[in-house]
Amino acid sequence: MLKLYYAPGSCARASHIALHEAGADFELALVDFASAEQRTPVYHAVNPKGRVPALATDQGILTETPAILTYIAQTHPEKQLAPLDDPFQFARMQAVNAYLCATVHVAHAHSRRGERWADTPEAITEMKRKAPQVMAQCFTMIEDNLLRRPWVLGDLYSTADPYLFTITQWLPFHDLDSTDYPKVHEHMRRMLERPAVHTAIALETQSG
Amino acid sequence: MLKLYYAPGSCARASHIALHEAGADFELALVDFASAEQRTPVYHAVNPKGRVPALATDQGILTETPAILTYIAQTHPEKQLAPLDDPFQFARMQAVNAYLCATVHVAHAHSRRGERWADTPEAITEMKRKAPQVMAQCFTMIEDNLLRRPWVLGDLYSTADPYLFTITQWLPFHDLDSTDYPKVHEHMRRMLERPAVHTAIALETQSG
Repeated sequence: MLKLYYAPGSCARASHIALHEAGADFELALVDFASAEQRTPVYHAVNPKGRVPALATDQGILTETPAILTYIAQTHPEKQLAPLDDPFQFARMQAVNAYLCATVHVAHAHSRRGERWADTPEAITEMKRKAPQVMAQCFTMIEDNLLRRPWVLGDLYSTADPYLFTITQWLPFHDLDSTDYPKVHEHMRRMLERPAVHTAIALETQSG
Repeated sequence: MLKLYYAPGSCARASHIALHEAGADFELALVDFASAEQRTPVYHAVNPKGRVPALATDQGILTETPAILTYIAQTHPEKQLAPLDDPFQFARMQAVNAYLCATVHVAHAHSRRGERWADTPEAITEMKRKAPQVMAQCFTMIEDNLLRRPWVLGDLYSTADPYLFTITQWLPFHDLDSTDYPKVHEHMRRMLERPAVHTAIALETQSG
């Protein structure tokens, strides 16, 4: 059985939703960030990077959201969670996932984890101050260039959808409002209608 | 025909090498960073993110290194540049590519593009100061946990190899030495023996 290591509301929610969409047989393993469990030797044996998500499979542990999302899609092909037989559309999906991972999530992290890139309080404060601007730039890029409708890829629902949804839900941390990005906002509302999304949020809320 | 938009020595080199490995029919389009060509309306029509690489295909433009690398592998399956039929190994490759994109490249960017995340000269200077430490942490993670031998995935050469090679070549910018990471160093030397790598570097050097 699969086991997803997660923290409530973290980027692991994208993989959590995808597992429900796939109808996968899996269990959840809460990593308690409040007690810094992600920095313990026990968790480092799971993921030496000390991050979530991690997905334990019968072949070993997988990390990194874009990799886990595609793994879920590939191992549940009947659910059509990715355009597996169309290299161009698959690459478009992967490009969105890479942007969310390497640009948008990174922008967010500058408000909460500035110590990754600077030691002085002044620099960390400055990054925190600028983070909402950078997040706003990212969501303008998504609104104007990356999000087709109704789903990220257009008519085809894919793993890019739970990932975008997960990060969209971080906008309030930056005092940003999804209604300023009408396509993003509509996407978020449409995601909230999906049973897999309901289930994932409910389970994370109970545990969190 | 494919067209790769690149800048010499940038992360686009990974895609450039992969195109040669694939024997792809492609041409190069230099984006001149010295004159900030990546910020011009003409280039933004290619890639609104203003970054390289971008790959023009007959179906449209693709961006983001992990997406382009997998596209090259999927469209040239006979070259076996990725474990396309093994979801677990494919996910391992993607996890390395995601780490290179979202953590290692981002660490590097803090020494050169700090203005993405801060406005004050003090904060930008502080990020630049810390960047070599963060790069060193990343390469310790790669050395200890991510790089099997002889290739990233072990016996199977994959797109993670040109990507790791490309970023390994940035270590001197940070006064870091690949010999401090013996497996990484051996990997770099092995990559330098591949004709595709020779060809890519020679073409970029001529243009740069």
